Amino acid sequence: MPGNSFGQIFRITTFGESHGSMIGVVIDGCPPGLLLSEDDLRPDLERRRPGQSRVTTPRAEADDPEIVSGLFEGRSTGAPICILFRNKDARSRHYDDIAKLYRPGHADYTVDAKYGIRDHRGGGRLSARETVARVAAGVVAKKLLTAEGIDIVGYTVQVGSIMAGEIDRQSVRVEDVDANDVRCPDALAAKAMNELILQVRKEGDSIGGTAEFIARGCPPGLGEPVFDKLKADLAKAFLSIPAVTGFEYGSGFAAAQMRGSEHNDPFVMRDGKVATETNRHGGMLGGISSGEMIIMRAPLKPTSSIPKEQRTVSTDHTETTVKVEGRHDPCLLPRFVPIGEAMIALVLADHLMRWRAQCSRP
Amino acid sequence: MPGNSFGQIFRITTFGESHGSMIGVVIDGCPPGLLLSEDDLRPDLERRRPGQSRVTTPRAEADDPEIVSGLFEGRSTGAPICILFRNKDARSRHYDDIAKLYRPGHADYTVDAKYGIRDHRGGGRLSARETVARVAAGVVAKKLLTAEGIDIVGYTVQVGSIMAGEIDRQSVRVEDVDANDVRCPDALAAKAMNELILQVRKEGDSIGGTAEFIARGCPPGLGEPVFDKLKADLAKAFLSIPAVTGFEYGSGFAAAQMRGSEHNDPFVMRDGKVATETNRHGGMLGGISSGEMIIMRAPLKPTSSIPKEQRTVSTDHTETTVKVEGRHDPCLLPRFVPIGEAMIALVLADHLMRWRAQCSRP
Amino acid sequence: MPGNSFGQIFRITTFGESHGSMIGVVIDGCPPGLLLSEDDLRPDLERRRPGQSRVTTPRAEADDPEIVSGLFEGRSTGAPICILFRNKDARSRHYDDIAKLYRPGHADYTVDAKYGIRDHRGGGRLSARETVARVAAGVVAKKLLTAEGIDIVGYTVQVGSIMAGEIDRQSVRVEDVDANDVRCPDALAAKAMNELILQVRKEGDSIGGTAEFIARGCPPGLGEPVFDKLKADLAKAFLSIPAVTGFEYGSGFAAAQMRGSEHNDPFVMRDGKVATETNRHGGMLGGISSGEMIIMRAPLKPTSSIPKEQRTVSTDHTETTVKVEGRHDPCLLPRFVPIGEAMIALVLADHLMRWRAQCSRP
Amino acid sequence: MPGNSFGQIFRITTFGESHGSMIGVVIDGCPPGLLLSEDDLRPDLERRRPGQSRVTTPRAEADDPEIVSGLFEGRSTGAPICILFRNKDARSRHYDDIAKLYRPGHADYTVDAKYGIRDHRGGGRLSARETVARVAAGVVAKKLLTAEGIDIVGYTVQVGSIMAGEIDRQSVRVEDVDANDVRCPDALAAKAMNELILQVRKEGDSIGGTAEFIARGCPPGLGEPVFDKLKADLAKAFLSIPAVTGFEYGSGFAAAQMRGSEHNDPFVMRDGKVATETNRHGGMLGGISSGEMIIMRAPLKPTSSIPKEQRTVSTDHTETTVKVEGRHDPCLLPRFVPIGEAMIALVLADHLMRWRAQCSRP
Repeated sequence: MPGNSFGQIFRITTFGESHGSMIGVVIDGCPPGLLLSEDDLRPDLERRRPGQSRVTTPRAEADDPEIVSGLFEGRSTGAPICILFRNKDARSRHYDDIAKLYRPGHADYTVDAKYGIRDHRGGGRLSARETVARVAAGVVAKKLLTAEGIDIVGYTVQVGSIMAGEIDRQSVRVEDVDANDVRCPDALAAKAMNELILQVRKEGDSIGGTAEFIARGCPPGLGEPVFDKLKADLAKAFLSIPAVTGFEYGSGFAAAQMRGSEHNDPFVMRDGKVATETNRHGGMLGGISSGEMIIMRAPLKPTSSIPKEQRTVSTDHTETTVKVEGRHDPCLLPRFVPIGEAMIALVLADHLMRWRAQCSRP
Repeated sequence: MPGNSFGQIFRITTFGESHGSMIGVVIDGCPPGLLLSEDDLRPDLERRRPGQSRVTTPRAEADDPEIVSGLFEGRSTGAPICILFRNKDARSRHYDDIAKLYRPGHADYTVDAKYGIRDHRGGGRLSARETVARVAAGVVAKKLLTAEGIDIVGYTVQVGSIMAGEIDRQSVRVEDVDANDVRCPDALAAKAMNELILQVRKEGDSIGGTAEFIARGCPPGLGEPVFDKLKADLAKAFLSIPAVTGFEYGSGFAAAQMRGSEHNDPFVMRDGKVATETNRHGGMLGGISSGEMIIMRAPLKPTSSIPKEQRTVSTDHTETTVKVEGRHDPCLLPRFVPIGEAMIALVLADHLMRWRAQCSRP
Repeated sequence: MPGNSFGQIFRITTFGESHGSMIGVVIDGCPPGLLLSEDDLRPDLERRRPGQSRVTTPRAEADDPEIVSGLFEGRSTGAPICILFRNKDARSRHYDDIAKLYRPGHADYTVDAKYGIRDHRGGGRLSARETVARVAAGVVAKKLLTAEGIDIVGYTVQVGSIMAGEIDRQSVRVEDVDANDVRCPDALAAKAMNELILQVRKEGDSIGGTAEFIARGCPPGLGEPVFDKLKADLAKAFLSIPAVTGFEYGSGFAAAQMRGSEHNDPFVMRDGKVATETNRHGGMLGGISSGEMIIMRAPLKPTSSIPKEQRTVSTDHTETTVKVEGRHDPCLLPRFVPIGEAMIALVLADHLMRWRAQCSRP
Repeated sequence: MPGNSFGQIFRITTFGESHGSMIGVVIDGCPPGLLLSEDDLRPDLERRRPGQSRVTTPRAEADDPEIVSGLFEGRSTGAPICILFRNKDARSRHYDDIAKLYRPGHADYTVDAKYGIRDHRGGGRLSARETVARVAAGVVAKKLLTAEGIDIVGYTVQVGSIMAGEIDRQSVRVEDVDANDVRCPDALAAKAMNELILQVRKEGDSIGGTAEFIARGCPPGLGEPVFDKLKADLAKAFLSIPAVTGFEYGSGFAAAQMRGSEHNDPFVMRDGKVATETNRHGGMLGGISSGEMIIMRAPLKPTSSIPKEQRTVSTDHTETTVKVEGRHDPCLLPRFVPIGEAMIALVLADHLMRWRAQCSRP
């Protein structure tokens, strides 16, 4: 299969380039009867939008969604739902001078090596602009999950070496996250992160960070061993996002230092249900959801596009230097939060439907 | 799709339970003409085998592969290759006393929640025993990769808090890795890891760790954006393995602390080819291989099965305690190395074939 | 997987309803470097277009394609190609009176039974309007096939009880087919078919027919046993088209009356290549192309929409009658020819790419 | 994807060659809790078995199934079910003399052209021997369908030019079909067919035929437009079977001669449900099941293997002659009936599960 589809039963296919005429997504497999309108899509699109604050890029992308199929009288029909975004702010002239250069940290060279032809304008198909389609599809998935009592929250926990303090995962809400520009619910840390990002931008540089995501209310039983484990599909979902360089759930990399006797979460009875006392397993055992909160983290590399001069080579194989002009995010974390949430929603909606299909008892 | 297949064009399907009569794998999509015999499979199977050293479980699984289809006169024919392993040492009596208990850290509870029926013997389908099928299929993939000049090496870099020193990734060979029981090419660290594992076992406990994997000789161009990026499929491959709790490539989680100016790898010309001076990008840009070495790491949690008494609940929802008897690995790292290598080989072979199909120029 | 995608490597996903705002298709997996423009699409779109002649519906659909992604400077980039058609002539008022009726021969009732919600306007998603997207995608596939020396021709061989005489399959060209309105290269039979269709329309009725399709120049080796045989994927392609009620290749249903000694095609040497003397096997043996011409036929039922009064039931389960007003084709054959060709092209392009991927020798 | 898997959610993968050591099937996606044993498989395997009567081949294949995974205490667990058949009667010496010849009507030449290597023994992977795996998997699917009140019956309706009279589709049972060797419930026609087959065998020849299949009790709503229509997946299922040269449902090829006013089935109310008065639509409208009986027919070509001398070429491209020795079916129809039933069962079980997944209302 080609690589532009994601999911098995709740399945999306995205298309479009950064500076082409449109970006879009086709959602195939959405159950019929779901109330849906463009207005439902706007809040998360706004959270992903460039130019939303001083710590993101000042580019002003419109991100006005148009649902062109799959709805009848405001409800999904079971037919594929196509959502289109017209690209408006396509100043491709910024990119003309780098058409013949491989920008460090970008996919310019690898795209040339793979396809032998490259839409250099703004990164073409490999641009993070494509994630606008994922966020729109993610809203549809979130609506299905909300009906099942599942909610997803993401937030920044690290920018450079500034770490957030303990976040109360039981109570944290999207509103708490969106209370500041960096999307970190620890207000004090958020302030320091904010200052660091502004400082880094001033220096013509960029900075990395880490975000954490939780899914609450997920029933036990999601995940399809042995390859489509829930942890495996979540890992794939995250690593499919531009700039993500890793993934961990529960104890994650810290598990390497632990002993079994301290790592294993004891099973207990809670409210008449089987539960675990602690949650180092991050809500998944054997790759199947346990009913406990699902907890994940992913690091992002610093934005590759920086105004600072960097050494590189040209497409005709001459060593040279490049300054990546244009309006770029000094730190990707604030806009990453809704993208990560969307990918989690897509995975969970797909697995909910897969479970329904396969585990119907004869 | 159900979850027991992996890969798109070079595609495997595994089956079988820990204490069922057989474990097996069907490889569909192997190109015709490949020389293959059971003897090719044995070295990696031996590296994965239980009972291979004092730091692994003393269980003696036979792991004698039988190729029952897809070959003619010693070569693959393009038909599916089925490899079977008969389970011989099936002492399921060890498990009778835990049929009614949920072992902490195991999938017993989640399997019950999902399927409503559970083969409790040795973890059933969710047992790490299933990975014997992956390792066998991985050998076939490795043979295809070797013909393309690609080799894969994995090694332990951390056990508990003991870290290996710098490994020379250009020169490290499987022989260096297999030179000691813990599969760490840093002999000094290996000795300390070995002692730690023996100590932990003596205490009736287990210990986690981290392994690093490299793939050398991979041409630029592998990976299918935007969802089946090479980094995404590798992440999924790793997180589908039992006990793996995370994945990172290149700078990984450390990227969170870096600035763009220090993280971006400058492009340079090397031997007449486009290359990068450094390799913080771990051999993938935009999710497409760059031609540089692919570098990945994955943490493993400590073995869930420990003789120490743990609190848990029974299947009839009574709180109780459990000691997991039987012969278990005190540390999973030594046996994880060939399993991780196999999964990488499966991903790379699949992507090589996907690229051939899609990028043929009209 | 949901049902709106077709193909494995050269893969299309269609979306849109008869009277929604747009119909479209995403082609994922098209090799990079293919020259493509909207003008390439117009000839086949024109052949499928309603209102093209007196024997088709007088509806005037615009069918103006817009390629919104996947091209750069006139060539495919390897990214998904999205082609959009804006629905202009959407007189949905024609359909208001049948919103509450199940039209005989249509999917109104089955859509209600399946989805519980129905876009009744013009058949919604199940309308033959959707095939405009298939024909556009088929042009892209045809361009890939032309580069390989493969061409596809379809033509009407039967309308009602009027049969075409022998067609010279070696020499028949699309121009010969398009020389008359019914698309039958036997001019005499075409004239009779034409008259029959006009007569049937005058009577407020419709009429069925059969078309034959050939693919010339196909190399031996296409088809993926044992389930994705070429004959199997072609059969699926045809039966996915509205109104198609059967499929046969080579001797087809007539094989039932034959003996092995008369049916088997003797192998001979021709121009230094293995060939068959006759072609009762229709160009496929074991579901793999043989290098001989591929020959297929498919029947179409008479158009379900007829002005004649018919008995039916309403959505509230009352028995009643219905006359299906609007402008409908009295016979589907003329417009079916380019649709069938498109589906064959999609299957062959996909199988060409699948073969390239899997049969690369190690 | 490679071609040896069938189905999306209830998915089978078959493997093995005619004269290899084993034939087998992995069923992935079977719901947990299904009672299943080898004994369940035997009746249909017996119906497919060679050597069952004087009108089939006298070869005695054992067809003793072994279920090696996916069951626990007699029930399915949700894990993949692997069923193995050991090949016992592998007299490959019969085939040595044809290793260097292309048998007319067989896939010998196309396999060589595709793979460049061929297991010539008994047709290798392309042998009808592979269908034993399909029949076994079909039994599992039938068990799921029986629980939903769906039953499937197939029967011979034509051998050569002998046609069965009208079959009462409402009442015909498998027992009626199996009452004679040719599996035609019209006893008189069966007798004539029987005589014809014996005569043909005596002449060293073979004969074709047609079978009809019905599925009763199927609820309205199965089928996934617009490509995975039920009629499309059934057509693919049939054309994936060796020797099948066509498919039709409902009025099929006869629809070409009909007018809309005679073809459209009027909707009526029956037992309080929407029904059709007649069933020319064969139980599917818009590719979705209507609740009426599903009716299909498929022709089979005469067995390609015949003792009569035929002209052919050798693998070194010399024109020569061949007599295909061995014990072959003079007519494939009797053994085709259970194979066709199995494929229908696989399609319906898969679509039932797909529907459950996708059409859950939000």
